[in-house]
This record gives sequence, C-alpha cells and structure tokens, in this order.
Amino acid sequence: MYEGVVQDLIDELGRLPNIGPKSAQRIAFHLLQADPVDVRRLADVLVRVKETVRFCELCGNVASAARCRVCLDPRRDPTVLCVVEESKDVVAIERTREFRGRYHVLGGAISPIDGVGPDDLRIRELMTRLADGSVTELILATDPNLEGEATATYLARLVKPLTADGALRITRLASGLPVGGDLEYADEVTLGRAFEGRRSLDV
Amino acid sequence: MYEGVVQDLIDELGRLPNIGPKSAQRIAFHLLQADPVDVRRLADVLVRVKETVRFCELCGNVASAARCRVCLDPRRDPTVLCVVEESKDVVAIERTREFRGRYHVLGGAISPIDGVGPDDLRIRELMTRLADGSVTELILATDPNLEGEATATYLARLVKPLTADGALRITRLASGLPVGGDLEYADEVTLGRAFEGRRSLDV
Repeated sequence: MYEGVVQDLIDELGRLPNIGPKSAQRIAFHLLQADPVDVRRLADVLVRVKETVRFCELCGNVASAARCRVCLDPRRDPTVLCVVEESKDVVAIERTREFRGRYHVLGGAISPIDGVGPDDLRIRELMTRLADGSVTELILATDPNLEGEATATYLARLVKPLTADGALRITRLASGLPVGGDLEYADEVTLGRAFEGRRSLDV
Repeated sequence: MYEGVVQDLIDELGRLPNIGPKSAQRIAFHLLQADPVDVRRLADVLVRVKETVRFCELCGNVASAARCRVCLDPRRDPTVLCVVEESKDVVAIERTREFRGRYHVLGGAISPIDGVGPDDLRIRELMTRLADGSVTELILATDPNLEGEATATYLARLVKPLTADGALRITRLASGLPVGGDLEYADEVTLGRAFEGRRSLDV
C-alpha cells in the first residue's frame, strides 16, 4: 500500500515481537515525522548493540566483555547459583537486591511445542559449573509457568546425584509468584518474598 | 539496570509510540538474540527512510519524489479534494477504492491540549489549492473524534466564503464510522459506505 521504503520499514517493524501491523504503521509514521537525528540514533544503537554486546562465557548473561558484571564481581557468593531462563530475569532479580549469589542463564525453557529441548539450553555448561562441588545451593528460578516448571523438574532430576552426600541443595522460588505468568513481570516485593521463602525441591 | 548499549537500545525503543518499558525490553532482547543481518536490515531501512522519504509538495502526503503517487496520477479527479489528517488516512481511503479524487494531508488536527493550532497544520496550502476555483467538492475526512470534528468545523467556516456562488460544496464523511475512534482503524466496508453517504455540511 505504501511507497517502497515506507512499506519496507513497516514490514521490518512488524517482525519485532509484540508489534502488530497497526502498531508497525503507527511507529513508521512517527519515525517519518521524527527528527532525523533521533532516527539516526536508533539506527546506530541497533548496529552498536550487535557489534558490542556479547554473552558471558561463564553464565550466559548479557555482557560487554568476556564475562558479565555479576561474574566479574568478587563480592558475589560463588556457592549459590541461581538458574534463570533469560538475561532479563537476571535484571528482575537484581532489582530486588535480595540475592548475592551468581547466575546461570539457560537461554530459554524446555518447550516441546516450540521445538526447544534440553540440548538447546545451556545445561551442559551448568553441569560443568557444578562439577567442582563449589556450589552448595542451586536455585531453580525458571518462570512459574508450564515450560519453566518442566525445566526446573528436568534440572532437579539431572542434578539430583550431586545432592546425595548433602553437598548440594536444590531450591525453587517460593510460590507467591502468580502462577501462569512470567517472572519478569513480577514486582520487586513479590519477587523478593519469593526469594526469601524459597523451598527445597523433592524429586 | 543493563550494561551500557543494551540500556541505550531499551531507552531508544521506549521513545517510540505504543511501546512501554516492558515492550522495549522484550524487543531489545529479541534483537540481542536475532540474526545480525536482520538487525542490520532494520537499521538500514531506518536510515534509508529518512534519506529518501519526502512529503508531497502539493498535498503533503508521503512521497518518494517531489509529488506523491496520487498527485502524479492524471486519472485522479482534480475537482474533488479530500482533506485528511495524516498520510495513513490516505492509505485507509485508497484501500476502499471508493474515492477517485485527490487529497490534502493536514499533518494533524487542531488540538489545543497538545498545543496544535491551525497554523501548525497545512491549512494555508489548502487555501492556495482552492483559490483557482477548480475544486468543486471539498470532503472533510478528518477523524470522527473531538479534534477531527473541531478541525472540520474550523475548515468549513474558513472555506464557507468560497461556497457562496455554489461553486464549491463542502461535505463530511457519513456517520457510520464509530464515533470517538480513529479513521485509520475503520474496516474497508464501513469506510467505503461512509464515503458513499457523505453529506453536505451546514455552517
């Protein structure tokens, strides 16, 4: 319907998550009328983000160097490891200031319907981190929905042999998080309480 | 909360219309994990759109040359002029295939609350186009909401002197459009019927 490049822009915007065709059109027209400097800045940051942002070689979190800020921080407790699905979950948890351990970012959750199996997640890297026995508590902080629960159960079973001598405790965030929702949408207080009340997982 | 450039990206995305902080974060993480080629294509189209897209010197519609496709089309009836708020309204009307005249894009509607007055719209350009008397019908197709109605009333009063000798008829799209909504969201049939049933405006 639109002339060349305007339609291209609408198409590209429509490929982003949560942006339907009407939103894409609205954003495109906003950009058409916006100050070229502002649009240039958005274009630049898109290029820059792909050039500079990496994923921490240890935990998989977003990083601007080989390791992320949490992994580089010597004050973080290396004996408590919190497993989350995504980097944005790290940010949500950091915001509560309840947690002083380290993270492991899986890169998603097990979801057969989306074709995501255990091999698509950073589970082998997790097992490597647990191998030296320095971690004494593993918090499974995957989302409190179907895929997150399935992933937590899968991990709990996988890690169970390491708990035999009492050297490792596996915990799951307390309920209190609304079931069926996404961890990233929880408010600080709810998420903080869920951390305080985390319970041992029976497998 | 995020490291440098990731936060910059979230901030830039959050400045776009209809994108709240959570959506901005979700889109940013989608882009972080996306193929660099796809992100590059989005960045490129943003730059290209600002470099190549112009506004038609005659009607104010989006154009890739000095004049837009409608103004360049010799088959379009120059005696019927349809006044709309935005270029996206032109697209919505073109989709109905009901209208064979030409357009005039105001660039918005009168809205004191947003600080938009008549001088901020392309009203002087409209009066210039009407000056030679070649237009015999002026369709005021501003949005059927408060600002759009106010703009239509303002224009009708301004243009009224030209209607004295019967040379110009002023019309407004028929009701049938849901009141309080945006013209761009109307479906083709509703908008087409509104065109068919357009009525003279008494001022």
